[in-house]
Amino acid sequence: MSVKVFLNEGEIPRQWYNLAADLPSPLQPPLGPDGNPISPDMLAPVFPMNLIEQEVSQSRWIKIPDEVLNLLYRWRPSPLHRAVYLEKALDTPARIYYKNESLSPPGSHKPNTAVAQAWYNKTFGIKRLTTETGAGQWGSALAFACSLLGLECKVFMVRISFDQKPFRKIMMQTWNADCVASPSKETNAGREILAATPDTPGSLGIAISEAVEAAVTDKSGETRYSLGSVLNHVLLHQTVIGLEAKKQLEMFGEKKPDVVIGCAGGGSNFAGLAFPFVNDKINGAQIEIIPVEPASCPTMTRAPFVYDHGDTAKMTPLLAMYSLGHAFIPPPIHAGGLRYHGMAPLVSQAIVEGLLTPQAMVQNECYQAAVTFARTEGIIIAPETSHAVAAVIREAKKAKEEKKQKVILFNLSGHGMMDLAGYDAFFQGKLQDYVLPEEDIKKSLSAIAGYPKPSANKSGKW
Amino acid sequence: MSVKVFLNEGEIPRQWYNLAADLPSPLQPPLGPDGNPISPDMLAPVFPMNLIEQEVSQSRWIKIPDEVLNLLYRWRPSPLHRAVYLEKALDTPARIYYKNESLSPPGSHKPNTAVAQAWYNKTFGIKRLTTETGAGQWGSALAFACSLLGLECKVFMVRISFDQKPFRKIMMQTWNADCVASPSKETNAGREILAATPDTPGSLGIAISEAVEAAVTDKSGETRYSLGSVLNHVLLHQTVIGLEAKKQLEMFGEKKPDVVIGCAGGGSNFAGLAFPFVNDKINGAQIEIIPVEPASCPTMTRAPFVYDHGDTAKMTPLLAMYSLGHAFIPPPIHAGGLRYHGMAPLVSQAIVEGLLTPQAMVQNECYQAAVTFARTEGIIIAPETSHAVAAVIREAKKAKEEKKQKVILFNLSGHGMMDLAGYDAFFQGKLQDYVLPEEDIKKSLSAIAGYPKPSANKSGKW
Repeated sequence: MSVKVFLNEGEIPRQWYNLAADLPSPLQPPLGPDGNPISPDMLAPVFPMNLIEQEVSQSRWIKIPDEVLNLLYRWRPSPLHRAVYLEKALDTPARIYYKNESLSPPGSHKPNTAVAQAWYNKTFGIKRLTTETGAGQWGSALAFACSLLGLECKVFMVRISFDQKPFRKIMMQTWNADCVASPSKETNAGREILAATPDTPGSLGIAISEAVEAAVTDKSGETRYSLGSVLNHVLLHQTVIGLEAKKQLEMFGEKKPDVVIGCAGGGSNFAGLAFPFVNDKINGAQIEIIPVEPASCPTMTRAPFVYDHGDTAKMTPLLAMYSLGHAFIPPPIHAGGLRYHGMAPLVSQAIVEGLLTPQAMVQNECYQAAVTFARTEGIIIAPETSHAVAAVIREAKKAKEEKKQKVILFNLSGHGMMDLAGYDAFFQGKLQDYVLPEEDIKKSLSAIAGYPKPSANKSGKW
Repeated sequence: MSVKVFLNEGEIPRQWYNLAADLPSPLQPPLGPDGNPISPDMLAPVFPMNLIEQEVSQSRWIKIPDEVLNLLYRWRPSPLHRAVYLEKALDTPARIYYKNESLSPPGSHKPNTAVAQAWYNKTFGIKRLTTETGAGQWGSALAFACSLLGLECKVFMVRISFDQKPFRKIMMQTWNADCVASPSKETNAGREILAATPDTPGSLGIAISEAVEAAVTDKSGETRYSLGSVLNHVLLHQTVIGLEAKKQLEMFGEKKPDVVIGCAGGGSNFAGLAFPFVNDKINGAQIEIIPVEPASCPTMTRAPFVYDHGDTAKMTPLLAMYSLGHAFIPPPIHAGGLRYHGMAPLVSQAIVEGLLTPQAMVQNECYQAAVTFARTEGIIIAPETSHAVAAVIREAKKAKEEKKQKVILFNLSGHGMMDLAGYDAFFQGKLQDYVLPEEDIKKSLSAIAGYPKPSANKSGKW
């Protein structure tokens, strides 16, 4: 019996799938400072117009340019594995499959959109991209993409991560990117913060402010900003994952998955795998679709559906999403990629529509799942991915109790080679099972109490 | 045009190729303490008999057991890439292909033999393996293999690496291995050395002594020692690489490579790719086959073909090989996997026969090649692999000068995610181009002056 199937390059999907075309209710529009919907051209100083067009597109299928396919071919299609050894260890009747996105050169799903964004920017005449990065996965992926296309890349990396994870910085440098600690002296935002608090460890919010400022203030007009998750076009680019997985499940003889699982921070790896199956669900298929988040940063399971800024410094438009409030600072868990205060508008709207059933997990259950996975399937996964695997193990145990032959599909979004300190902390019994107190949510949300509210929706819970 | 081809699981080679069957002159036998050839049963306390049989086998093809194939399927077959972007950057008429062994869960070619050795040991009734590791690549691979098969694994890791590279230790722990710094207090060899030199940084020689002692002194009889390179059976297991590559070159429409290149420390990744092509060369094909070593540890290019111990502590039999002397301590280059005083007997004999043309490289040329590779092909390679890439770039430039459409094939033996400190040193201009002084070689070789000599061979240079 096969434990994995490949696709040839010729079998890669030729179009991205855009869930916005199929949601029962339309997405709520982003709002500007005046509380009115923004027009696409208001985003032009930040993003190139070809990506803005994708951001607002209502087309169901969007052609992947041949040049982007050529970039994806450097590591795609990715294999779909059947987790026969995990199944055996769990003694479950469930059949478990995973899409292995850890095999890209930067080690995660992030390059799927990084190469597309870099290509669209280059095509638009842009010479230089700026971005922020926390733990470094996204910064590495954009550095990789820019290196392949000959674009300059500037990464503002949260200072505490910059100091603690020097290897991520060296990865970016190897791919020719300029990575600086944030706050830096290179932007007004950075200089002001450094003047007030010289010893600040930095934050993702500050780094975003610096990256956006660096893009929009470049007088050459040849610099833009790039974001690694949350936005519609980012999730769109990730749908190659789910579209490939559909073909590969058929090669394994499976008609459909019963359960689809992905971890969700900003939402992009989850959406990439899940959205093609959300489409099937909208069309009547029985599929449970589970985004998994940390209990320390519970946007989907405990936050309200609101209008909020995408960044702490309030530089972005207001987005309709599940949010803990833009000033929320989550506890220091090891899954740095899941410490975002909001959730992608497309994922949020799908939750409002009742299409998804989010779950939240604490750290020790996730790392126990990751260790079980490493010792059965053999792959050391990223701390973010461990949230998906913890949910998979719960579902597989449930299938055993119910004696059901469920098909479970999940996204192995990245490897853990750059994140081994978390495993060490787990082995030493030092991991805390943070569950965010209710009063912290209330306090954080008070900052957005006066914001506009998303309009009523028949199935929404707000 | 395709940039890579996969094979399906069903297309994996079913037999390993044993070069010992085809060498024009037979291998020189290992010698015991009395200077006479050892018998296979003298190795029984160290290795299981099924692997000893492989070690001495003269069969050309050795069946890969189905259970070992199932272990290899967890990540194999590996893709063969065409390096179109590197070719373009070099403006070379050469067509460059690479076998991507970096996609295994531990990130290198090492698991090809680790899973086979673990399986043969388990089949023989062994419950526990011991080994040594320097930088940690081999220890990680054996930990991975033992984890999949439920064997205990004990790794003695050179103390200075243990302290400097804590992530490798955490990888091994995640795969359930017990990794201790060497010298340790767990063996007589370790205790004696610690008593004499409490602050010693350790060495591979000491670690081997500890690992062999821990295996042979276990009174249960259920422990054996495992080696990650050098020996015939280890190289045998790696030939899946070259056998897959042959099929894949055909899929690219290539009849044969003109040049085959691999880095060589103990010799296993080089042999794995090259030996099936050495067979073609013996049968008349025109192929230049190049093992590449560091100029700081030049066994193949500057050492004599002698009988020497495989370890510093002289616990192993005498092997006929190119050697700088078992007490040789190479300069501290970043390619830790290439810092071995000897060279695999099979590779050594192929050199004696005139079948291979070794090259030596200094560090800065290698890292420059690695950075070029990362910025064109997108993969950050291991420092060991950078030696192969440096030689590839030389060959590609030569092809340009000669206006020849050569086909160059090399082994991308591992990724550099765990070894980024070397890239950092390169960017900072801190790398030294060590070339071993002649007097150091003479001095080191004086320790083996009285050893038996390999018998005369028509094409040998000793």
